[in-house]
Amino acid sequence: MLNFASDYVEGAHPEILRRLCETNMEKLTGYGSDPYSASAREKIKAACQCEDADVHFLVGGTQTNQIVIASMMGASEGVISAETGHVNVHEAGAIEYTGHKVFSLPQKEGKLSASDVRAFLEAFWNDENHDHMVFPGMVYISHPTEYGTLYTKAELAALSEVCREFEIPLFLDGARLGYGLMSLHTDLMLPDIASLCDVFYIGGTKVGALCGEAVVFTKNNTPKHFITVIKRHGALLAKGRLLGIQFDTLFTDDLYMKISRHAIQLAEELIALLREKGYLFYLNSPTNQQFVILTAEQYERLKEEVVFSIWEKLPDGGAVVRFATSWATQKEDIAALAALL
Amino acid sequence: MLNFASDYVEGAHPEILRRLCETNMEKLTGYGSDPYSASAREKIKAACQCEDADVHFLVGGTQTNQIVIASMMGASEGVISAETGHVNVHEAGAIEYTGHKVFSLPQKEGKLSASDVRAFLEAFWNDENHDHMVFPGMVYISHPTEYGTLYTKAELAALSEVCREFEIPLFLDGARLGYGLMSLHTDLMLPDIASLCDVFYIGGTKVGALCGEAVVFTKNNTPKHFITVIKRHGALLAKGRLLGIQFDTLFTDDLYMKISRHAIQLAEELIALLREKGYLFYLNSPTNQQFVILTAEQYERLKEEVVFSIWEKLPDGGAVVRFATSWATQKEDIAALAALL
Amino acid sequence: MLNFASDYVEGAHPEILRRLCETNMEKLTGYGSDPYSASAREKIKAACQCEDADVHFLVGGTQTNQIVIASMMGASEGVISAETGHVNVHEAGAIEYTGHKVFSLPQKEGKLSASDVRAFLEAFWNDENHDHMVFPGMVYISHPTEYGTLYTKAELAALSEVCREFEIPLFLDGARLGYGLMSLHTDLMLPDIASLCDVFYIGGTKVGALCGEAVVFTKNNTPKHFITVIKRHGALLAKGRLLGIQFDTLFTDDLYMKISRHAIQLAEELIALLREKGYLFYLNSPTNQQFVILTAEQYERLKEEVVFSIWEKLPDGGAVVRFATSWATQKEDIAALAALL
Amino acid sequence: MLNFASDYVEGAHPEILRRLCETNMEKLTGYGSDPYSASAREKIKAACQCEDADVHFLVGGTQTNQIVIASMMGASEGVISAETGHVNVHEAGAIEYTGHKVFSLPQKEGKLSASDVRAFLEAFWNDENHDHMVFPGMVYISHPTEYGTLYTKAELAALSEVCREFEIPLFLDGARLGYGLMSLHTDLMLPDIASLCDVFYIGGTKVGALCGEAVVFTKNNTPKHFITVIKRHGALLAKGRLLGIQFDTLFTDDLYMKISRHAIQLAEELIALLREKGYLFYLNSPTNQQFVILTAEQYERLKEEVVFSIWEKLPDGGAVVRFATSWATQKEDIAALAALL
Repeated sequence: MLNFASDYVEGAHPEILRRLCETNMEKLTGYGSDPYSASAREKIKAACQCEDADVHFLVGGTQTNQIVIASMMGASEGVISAETGHVNVHEAGAIEYTGHKVFSLPQKEGKLSASDVRAFLEAFWNDENHDHMVFPGMVYISHPTEYGTLYTKAELAALSEVCREFEIPLFLDGARLGYGLMSLHTDLMLPDIASLCDVFYIGGTKVGALCGEAVVFTKNNTPKHFITVIKRHGALLAKGRLLGIQFDTLFTDDLYMKISRHAIQLAEELIALLREKGYLFYLNSPTNQQFVILTAEQYERLKEEVVFSIWEKLPDGGAVVRFATSWATQKEDIAALAALL
Repeated sequence: MLNFASDYVEGAHPEILRRLCETNMEKLTGYGSDPYSASAREKIKAACQCEDADVHFLVGGTQTNQIVIASMMGASEGVISAETGHVNVHEAGAIEYTGHKVFSLPQKEGKLSASDVRAFLEAFWNDENHDHMVFPGMVYISHPTEYGTLYTKAELAALSEVCREFEIPLFLDGARLGYGLMSLHTDLMLPDIASLCDVFYIGGTKVGALCGEAVVFTKNNTPKHFITVIKRHGALLAKGRLLGIQFDTLFTDDLYMKISRHAIQLAEELIALLREKGYLFYLNSPTNQQFVILTAEQYERLKEEVVFSIWEKLPDGGAVVRFATSWATQKEDIAALAALL
Repeated sequence: MLNFASDYVEGAHPEILRRLCETNMEKLTGYGSDPYSASAREKIKAACQCEDADVHFLVGGTQTNQIVIASMMGASEGVISAETGHVNVHEAGAIEYTGHKVFSLPQKEGKLSASDVRAFLEAFWNDENHDHMVFPGMVYISHPTEYGTLYTKAELAALSEVCREFEIPLFLDGARLGYGLMSLHTDLMLPDIASLCDVFYIGGTKVGALCGEAVVFTKNNTPKHFITVIKRHGALLAKGRLLGIQFDTLFTDDLYMKISRHAIQLAEELIALLREKGYLFYLNSPTNQQFVILTAEQYERLKEEVVFSIWEKLPDGGAVVRFATSWATQKEDIAALAALL
Repeated sequence: MLNFASDYVEGAHPEILRRLCETNMEKLTGYGSDPYSASAREKIKAACQCEDADVHFLVGGTQTNQIVIASMMGASEGVISAETGHVNVHEAGAIEYTGHKVFSLPQKEGKLSASDVRAFLEAFWNDENHDHMVFPGMVYISHPTEYGTLYTKAELAALSEVCREFEIPLFLDGARLGYGLMSLHTDLMLPDIASLCDVFYIGGTKVGALCGEAVVFTKNNTPKHFITVIKRHGALLAKGRLLGIQFDTLFTDDLYMKISRHAIQLAEELIALLREKGYLFYLNSPTNQQFVILTAEQYERLKEEVVFSIWEKLPDGGAVVRFATSWATQKEDIAALAALL
C-alpha cells in the first residue's frame, strides 16, 4: 500500500548503512570521543559557518528538547512555546518532568510571533508579583513547525532581537531542518540560524538517519559538565560512533541537503497533484508535510488505499490528514497516488 | 492609613493567641502527634460530617497544593486548572517543580465549567496519540476562586460527576474557604464539599490563623506514607502543636464560621458603600474580596489614603484593584472609608 | 512525668509570645517584607559581624537544608555529608527529591574530617571517568552534630580551606546552633562561623521559637531569584511576620544566647548527675544533648518515670537513649531526676 | 594496536547489519509497534520461558536503569545497591535525578548478599523513626557484576526470597547478561532469572548490538502507561525498528548465546595465558571481563602495545586494569597478546 504517513517509516539512507558496514570492525573509543564524531562536528561547524560552535549528538528529538531546555535554564525559569509546540503537546510532559513550566502562547500556522513574545515578557516584568511567578527563561520554536511552516529570516531576526533584549536564549528545534532549508520558499539559511539562535538542533531521525540529532551551541554557551548532564539523563550513547558516522555521512558531499531537496521536489509535485484534483489544504506548507482536509467520502475511500496520518477527525466524518514526503519517497509513489486520485 | 490590601495583614485571632499562651509550657510530642492536633482533626471531621475523613495540617497554601497534587497523581499525569488558578500563575512553578504539568483551561469569573473539563477529557481520550501526551490526572479548583467567586452546589456536583466518570480526583483549594461558606449567596456547605470532593483544604492563614491549612482526604484516599511525603517536601512541622492548637481553636464554638461571617458582613457593607459612591465593579464577588475598576483620577487620589492591592494597571492610568475584608476588619474601617470616599 | 525527650517539646519562649501578642493587630506586609523581619535581619548581621550577609527566614530545618542545598548546587552536583548527617538519614530523601545525590562519608562522633573530605575530592578529580559520576558540589556539616558534638575552630577552618581549594561551598546546619555557641567547651564563635562558612543557618525551632530558621548567606552568594526559589518549594510564609518577630525577639538583648546558655548550664548539671550515679555515656557531648547507654534494668525502670528518646535498642535489652535540655528545662527538673536516680 | 579495552569498541555483529540493510526500505510504523519488535518480544519471552512476560526495548543501560527504577518505585522509596553498583557510581546521579535515593550496601566481589539486604530491611522497619527516612523500595543487582562476577542460583534465590518477604521488587541489570549465561562457571539460566526477578534487562549494547537493551517485566508488573513513561524520559525511539530488528536477530538461531559463548571461550584462553605468564588477578571473574594487577614495570610496558581499561592506579605506579573480550574478539588477538607477553 502507498504510504505517506510520515518521514520516518523507512530505515536510513543507504549511504549511511554503507558507511556503518564499512567501519563496523574498527575499534573506536566510546561516548562520542571517536574520530567520526569529531569529523562530523567539524563538518557541521563548517556548514553553519560558525567555527566556535560546540556540537553534541543525541539520540532523539524529545530527549534533545528535554536536555537542552533543562540544562540551559535556571531553576526558577520556564520555556515559552507556541501552544502547538512539540514540547507543549507531544512530549508526554518531558519538560515539566525536569521541573520546568512550558508557557504556551498563541500561534499562527504553528509559529510564534516576536510581538506576542515581547508582550508576554513585558507583562511578566511589569507584574508587581512576578517574584511569585515562573520566570520566562527561554524561547522555543520549531522550524519547520509542527505544521510544516517556516519562519522568514526577518521573523527569526525579530524573535532573536527580543530574546537578546530580555537576555534569554532562543532555541530552534530542527527535527526536520533539512526540509526547511531546502524549501523553495525560504530565505533562511543554516548560517543565519546559527547566527540568530543561541542553540538549535539539526534533525537526523526524520532526514535519513536511523536515529540522531545534532545539537549546536553557537555562543560558547554549552552548559557546564554537558557530558555529565547527558549521562544523567540516560542519553549518553556508549557506541557514540553510531551517531558520529551517520552525521559524518550526512554532512559529506552535501548529502543532508541533497536528500532534503529531493523530498521538497516531491512535496511540490504532491501539492500540484492535490491542487489539480481539487483537494483543500488546511494551510500552505512550503515543506515536506502537507495537511489536507478530506471530506467524509474522500477520507473513507482514500484510507483504503493510502496510508496517511490523521491529524484531526471532523464532526462531519471528514478529517484533517497529513501526507509527508521524505528522502525515501519515489517519483513512482507520486505517480501511483495520481493514478489513485 | 486605612488598609484593605488583603486578608493576611494582621497576626492571628486573639483567641488563638490566648490558647497558644495557655498551652505554651505543656510538654507535647512533635510532628502532629500531640492531643491538640488529634482534637482538631476530630472537630474538623465532625464539621465535615465525614467520619472517615483523614485530616493533616500543613503550613501554607502553595505547600499544600504542591504536596496534595504531587502525591495524588500518577507520574504520567498533569492537573487541570482554570488559567487563573493559583497553581497555574502564582506559585512560582511549584507544581511543575514536582514534575507535573498544569493544564490551563479557560475560566469564567475564575471558575472552571464541568462542560469544558469534560470536553478536554474527551478530546484527550479520543486522541490517537495520547500515549505521547500528559494524562489528565486531577481537577483543581479554588473556592472561593482567585476572583472571590463561588461555585454553586450544582456546579460542584457537575464537576464531581465528570471526575468520577473519568476516574480522576477533584481537589478544592479552600485557602479562603470560610469566606465562601459564610457568603450570603451560596448553597454550598462544608459537608457538601466533603462529599463532592476527593480532597480539599480548609484555609487557616487567611481566616484568622498565623499560618496553617487543614487538608481533608474524604474517600480513604490518603497517599501512602503521607507523613514521609510531607517530610520529604520539607513541610513537616516539628512543633506540630502550632497547627493543632490553631485549628482546634478555630473549630471550637464555631469560631472559624463566626469570624468568616463577620468578614462577609463587612464586605457587604463595603459593596453597598462602593456602589452608592458610583464605583464600578470588575465582577460580582459574593465573598470578602472585592475587585473595583478605578479611573486614573480615583486611583491617584485613593492610593494616598487607603492601602489596596493592584490587580492590573489599565492603559488609561486607571487600575483594577482589590479591597479585602477579613476577620480583623472593623466597622470603623468601613466608616472611615465612607468618610474618605 | 519528667520529660527530657527533646528540645522541642514546649511552645516558644514567653518573650516571643509576648511580642507576638503585642504586635498582633498591626497591619503588616507579607512574605518577609515587614519591618520586624528587616530588623531581625539587621540584628543577625550584627551578631555575625558580617555586614554584607544576606539573611532569609524559613520555617523548618529539613526545608532549609533542602532549599539551600538545591539552590546552591549545580545540576550535576551532589552534597558531601557525614553518614550520620541529618540530610543523609532523617529527611526522608528531601535532598534526593530535588535531584541531588548525598555522598555519605565516614564520621567520627558525628563529625566529618577535613582530611576525609580532601581525600574524597582528590579521588573524584583523579578518576578518569569522573564525567560519568556525580560532581561533589558542597560540603554539609551540622554544628552541633546529630550527636551533640562540636567542631573546633581549627577543624572548621580546615574544612573551609578544603572547600575554598576545591571551590565548593561549605554549609553549616545550625539547627541547635545556640547550644553550640554557648557550650563551655567551644572556641567557635558566631563571627567565626560567618567567616568560615559560605552559608549556614541559625536554628529557631529548637532554641525557643515556635518555628523558624534563619539562613545566612555570607559571601554575596544568595542564589538568583531566591524569593521565587522559596516560593517554588512551597516555603514562603504569607505572614512572614511570624518568623521576623520571633528572630527579632531572639536577637534582642542577647536572648538567643542567654536561653542557650541556660540549657547548657542545666546540661552540665545533668552530666554531673548522671556521672555521679554511674551512668555510662555513649560519647562526650559538650552541648544540650546527652547520649547515655542504659542497661536493660536501667532502661526498664527509667522509662516508667522519665521520657527520653530512644536512639538505638541494644541486643541485650538495654538502649542508647538521649536526654536533652533546652531553654525551657528547669532546675527543678534536674532535681527531680536526681531524686529518681 | 591490540585492543581489549571493553566489549563495546566495535559496531554490531555482521548479521545485525545484514538484517538492517535487508529490511531498510520496508515502510514500518514507529515507536516499537513494528512487526520486528513484536517478533523479538515473542522470541525473548520464549527464551525466558515466561509467556506472560512483557518486553520493552530501550536504547542504553543508564537509561534503562533510570526508567525501570523510577517507574517501579513509590515516591517515598529508594533503591538498594551494592556500593560498587553502576547506579550508585557511574550513572552521574541518574537515579537521584528522578528523586530517589540509592542506598549503598557493602559488596563482596561486586555482589550484594541476601543477609546484608535482610539486615538492612529489618533495621529500617525496626527503626521507630522510619517515617522520617527513605523507604527501601527495590533491590538492584547487576549480573555479571561490574567486576565480572556472577550470582549463583542459590544466591539469587535467597535475594529473591528476601524481596518477596519485604514485598519489594528485585531488579537485575543484565548489561552483559549473555556473558554471564554462557560462563563455564554458572548454574543460573535465563528462565531462572525470569522466575526469580521481578524485572531485568538483557543487554544488547555490550553483546553485539549497535545499541539497545531489552527490559523484561516478569510478573504482570509493567508500570502504568509505560510507553508514556518512556516518552517522558526522552527515551522512546521513533524508528523502533532499529531496536526490534537487532533483538530479533540476536534471538534468532540462538545468536545471542553463541556470540556470548565465543567471548567466554576467548576469556578462558586469556585467563590461561595471563596465569601462565604469572600475572596477578584482582579477583576471579568467570566472565568476559578480567581484572589484573599490573606492576609499575608491567603497566608501563604493556600500555605501549595493548589498549586496556585502567580501573585504579596504585600508589607504587602499578595499576588494576581490565581486559575484556567480546563477541568480536578473535583468536588471533589472544595469540598476538601471547606473543607480546
